Amino acid sequence: MSDESSVEETNAKPEADNELIVNCLPLNADERKAFIDAAGGLRQEFVTTESERLGMGWGNNIPASLLRAATVIVGNPPVDQVRAAPSLRWLQTSSAGVDTYLRGGVLSTGTMITSASGAYGQAVSEHMFAMMWALMKRLPEYRANQDERIWRDAGDTLSPVGASVLVIGTGDIGSHFATLAKAVGATTLGVRRTPSTAVRGVDRMYGFDTLDELLPQVDVVAMVVPATAQTHHLIDARRLRLMNRGAVLINAGRGDAIDCMALAQALEAGDIRAAGLDVTEPEPLPATHPLWDSVNCLITPHVAGGAHLESTVKAVIAIALENLKRYVAGIPPQNRIL
Amino acid sequence: MSDESSVEETNAKPEADNELIVNCLPLNADERKAFIDAAGGLRQEFVTTESERLGMGWGNNIPASLLRAATVIVGNPPVDQVRAAPSLRWLQTSSAGVDTYLRGGVLSTGTMITSASGAYGQAVSEHMFAMMWALMKRLPEYRANQDERIWRDAGDTLSPVGASVLVIGTGDIGSHFATLAKAVGATTLGVRRTPSTAVRGVDRMYGFDTLDELLPQVDVVAMVVPATAQTHHLIDARRLRLMNRGAVLINAGRGDAIDCMALAQALEAGDIRAAGLDVTEPEPLPATHPLWDSVNCLITPHVAGGAHLESTVKAVIAIALENLKRYVAGIPPQNRIL
Repeated sequence: MSDESSVEETNAKPEADNELIVNCLPLNADERKAFIDAAGGLRQEFVTTESERLGMGWGNNIPASLLRAATVIVGNPPVDQVRAAPSLRWLQTSSAGVDTYLRGGVLSTGTMITSASGAYGQAVSEHMFAMMWALMKRLPEYRANQDERIWRDAGDTLSPVGASVLVIGTGDIGSHFATLAKAVGATTLGVRRTPSTAVRGVDRMYGFDTLDELLPQVDVVAMVVPATAQTHHLIDARRLRLMNRGAVLINAGRGDAIDCMALAQALEAGDIRAAGLDVTEPEPLPATHPLWDSVNCLITPHVAGGAHLESTVKAVIAIALENLKRYVAGIPPQNRIL
Repeated sequence: MSDESSVEETNAKPEADNELIVNCLPLNADERKAFIDAAGGLRQEFVTTESERLGMGWGNNIPASLLRAATVIVGNPPVDQVRAAPSLRWLQTSSAGVDTYLRGGVLSTGTMITSASGAYGQAVSEHMFAMMWALMKRLPEYRANQDERIWRDAGDTLSPVGASVLVIGTGDIGSHFATLAKAVGATTLGVRRTPSTAVRGVDRMYGFDTLDELLPQVDVVAMVVPATAQTHHLIDARRLRLMNRGAVLINAGRGDAIDCMALAQALEAGDIRAAGLDVTEPEPLPATHPLWDSVNCLITPHVAGGAHLESTVKAVIAIALENLKRYVAGIPPQNRIL
């Protein structure tokens, strides 16, 4: 009840004179018109062009004068720009994760934050799925040989048919990934905090307390947990040793959910077969980190959750547009975090 | 009718004294026993150990004395070894393709040849599928950046969801591939000589005469045609220009079905987005070939159809074992080519 009343409080209908919406989304003409209509007369400035649509830097350079007056920001400006917006009442991110904005000193007390959670399930799960397939078929190794013009068989491969795929973190992205894995012949297991809730695509659900029992039994471990104290080094040296020596490990959640130094050692020792990381600890991965040299490690630079698919951009825009309508109407938004 | 009578003729029951089966399959103890039982008293020599199971060189070194006496070879020895077996009556290959053995001077007139067609659908289609996903998500480019320790976003990606995938050659492998593509959200089109026959996994089937109309409309072209006069340079410079500039081209059939010099130019010019080749023209691809340097070309060294999956090895063994039983019983074998 207290949640709902605070939502109503924060979402009192805005008054036109005091509001400035800084919109960082890369909208086409029709979409821009839809946001203007949705704003119901509130002033709105668009700071990103449609040409930046499939890039990753929307709203990286908001003019200081707009920041000073901004009461609403739609997008993911750098933290220092959000800090420079003292009148901010609402931040609608274009990302699913918002943890950079939750640190002390970034947002004033009472600022509402809503995310684009749900927009990235397809893009991130597909990136993880592509990594799983590439590692199963040794494609990173063949690509490395290609650089040397080496035409040489690299040996045995794996298949998802009949494999056990464990998904750790079964929200929108994990459920999408499990659905893909099932569609190509895998059995899917899931680990989540509330295992009693069924999740689409997951055959059998377990709690985190079962993780040590599951790890030796599975062929693929796919991780999409958020960054919390509980998930820090969730996969550490001990758990890497528990895993099947033929296993493939994928991480596209938060980098520190895996101890990356321990992972480099495990790959070197052959404790697991291969790893695909879209996130690392730290980021960017330092040039001296041993994972760069591991032939069985495929590294992508935190791009799975970028706006690289047109369908992702459309989903982000749809969430933000709906929330703007709700903001103007004074009703509770979707995906509220703060 | 003439086919059947010739099959019966060739398959007269063998006589124990005159026969020597040279078995090149990497059998475990139980499987070896099954072949001994199936041979019904015919002499059989096993020249490959189980330890070579997931390699690719079964039966590369058959002793000359065995070759001289061999009436049956199970496996794919090099052509010069088959030539050195003057008494050969039957060759059961462990490969799906047999064209290297069909050239003049390799087999004596009247030698029967049967293939392991059907054993490779899963392995080859999965390799093609892995290549498609890797190229859609730019993984070869990220892997190349990894070598330089470059942490950099490579830009927009593709998804099979809603994509049109054209499969050229819809036999066992093409059908498997189409089924995988459909399972992850693609619409599948097929081209084959007899378009009136429906194929599992293919939504709509066309004849080769429709190819020029289809190429501009599709997002993925996946080729698994055999090497014939009709398929030589089936995709040439003209057809590469017909294709969608965002398209991904995959070939795991025969290398000369694509004009590889024209492909290198098309990738350089941006006529298509990316290519994944498990087969090239010629093979191995010469070190000077421009395709090696194309960042949008992923090359694997004709390994998709190797015995790299345990399920493939089992399927090859099952076909050969069944055909040996039929040979001993004097009944027509499966997968007869000659």
